[in-house]
Amino acid sequence: MQITSERRLDDGVLEREFTLGRIPGTLWTPASAAPVPLVLMAHNNGLPKGDARLMARARHCAAYGYAVATIDAAGCGDRPRSAAEERARADLRRAMRADQPADEIFESFVAPLVERAVPEWRATLDALLSLPKIGGPVGYSGWTAVGIRLALVEPRIAAAGFFAGGYVPRAQRAEARRLTIPLLFLVQWDDEGNPRQRALDLFDAFGSKEKTLHANMGGHTGTPWFEVDDGNHFFGRHLR
Amino acid sequence: MQITSERRLDDGVLEREFTLGRIPGTLWTPASAAPVPLVLMAHNNGLPKGDARLMARARHCAAYGYAVATIDAAGCGDRPRSAAEERARADLRRAMRADQPADEIFESFVAPLVERAVPEWRATLDALLSLPKIGGPVGYSGWTAVGIRLALVEPRIAAAGFFAGGYVPRAQRAEARRLTIPLLFLVQWDDEGNPRQRALDLFDAFGSKEKTLHANMGGHTGTPWFEVDDGNHFFGRHLR
Repeated sequence: MQITSERRLDDGVLEREFTLGRIPGTLWTPASAAPVPLVLMAHNNGLPKGDARLMARARHCAAYGYAVATIDAAGCGDRPRSAAEERARADLRRAMRADQPADEIFESFVAPLVERAVPEWRATLDALLSLPKIGGPVGYSGWTAVGIRLALVEPRIAAAGFFAGGYVPRAQRAEARRLTIPLLFLVQWDDEGNPRQRALDLFDAFGSKEKTLHANMGGHTGTPWFEVDDGNHFFGRHLR
Repeated sequence: MQITSERRLDDGVLEREFTLGRIPGTLWTPASAAPVPLVLMAHNNGLPKGDARLMARARHCAAYGYAVATIDAAGCGDRPRSAAEERARADLRRAMRADQPADEIFESFVAPLVERAVPEWRATLDALLSLPKIGGPVGYSGWTAVGIRLALVEPRIAAAGFFAGGYVPRAQRAEARRLTIPLLFLVQWDDEGNPRQRALDLFDAFGSKEKTLHANMGGHTGTPWFEVDDGNHFFGRHLR
């Protein structure tokens, strides 16, 4: 892991850009003398890791007392995409906007992204836990499909917050039943890309005994800011 | 309002039993020099106000920094009930346990209870706000049907947390659309007395722009303790 730049933010949080092979990432750590738990913050494929809302969320979480890391996984964010991937992404957007069936496009496009993202997240996790002052247990926050797979294959993940899980690949719909870690499942009631009933069905399917659903009004990007605090409290119950 | 007894709890909270005419109540106030916001904690008709779980919740909320009050409204808790009311209550329990249609029994039994409880809560609110060191704005927590009506007729209620709103009388199902205050709606996913889909439909119906659903696993009495903290944070955003 190469640290390529770093800066100290106003609230004392240290923000470091890194690369791990081809994987670009950002790590935020609070001004703390003791080791802090790690939260992996995985946005889905549509946004770069430098998106302003994602950055604000990560910084707030770090200021609360966690090490927070994000990457652009293969085919996601600013990482290069094939012409076929670009086409599939445009097709998916068009279908969703027109409220047309999108399952097949979604499956062909997103399922491979999940398969490629998970090993990159695991390699990133190994590298992060070798840094000083970052300890376990580890939390996961964000992209539902990647989180389901990662939590199944990665015993170091102790708790996870998932966002907007209306659409997930078939493999992860099936894997959801095998999850056992505590979950916080965040749903936007009128999420234009994630049908409400599918999200509720996925919440119902998770095998975890301790799982909580938080639903708020509005569309995909309308999650109220207080959910960031709720997420911090959730991790506070499970990562200490 | 007559204070009939008082004691200081370990965490500095002052617990006072009171009567207001025929209404018995309890008031918890934190050790605070400044006036604190008031939270009305209304349990539904099946439990007395002295129930251990209700008391623990009220005390925790008071220790957090609110004045908290509860009463046994007419026909509720330890208040006298007519033979007809006792019969209706037994019929309702039997129907729900046997998973039989309970709407008509519920309507005939609970709708009048709500009509009688709301004026008693308003009288209690008047009396409480005349005490020193209890200020507005006022929050409401608990029994969904009473809370819907109370929030509609009582402009001093600024935010409300409702619990387990699967079954509410027809009048309150209709009134839900007219609510505008911020809401936190707490659902137990397998609540034996409150069908899940009805609770989700009621959440959907509330007119409030800011409304949040929290759903947790288990039956009616299985709400995890951390929801008390979430409720305190919710009121913290709206009663300060």
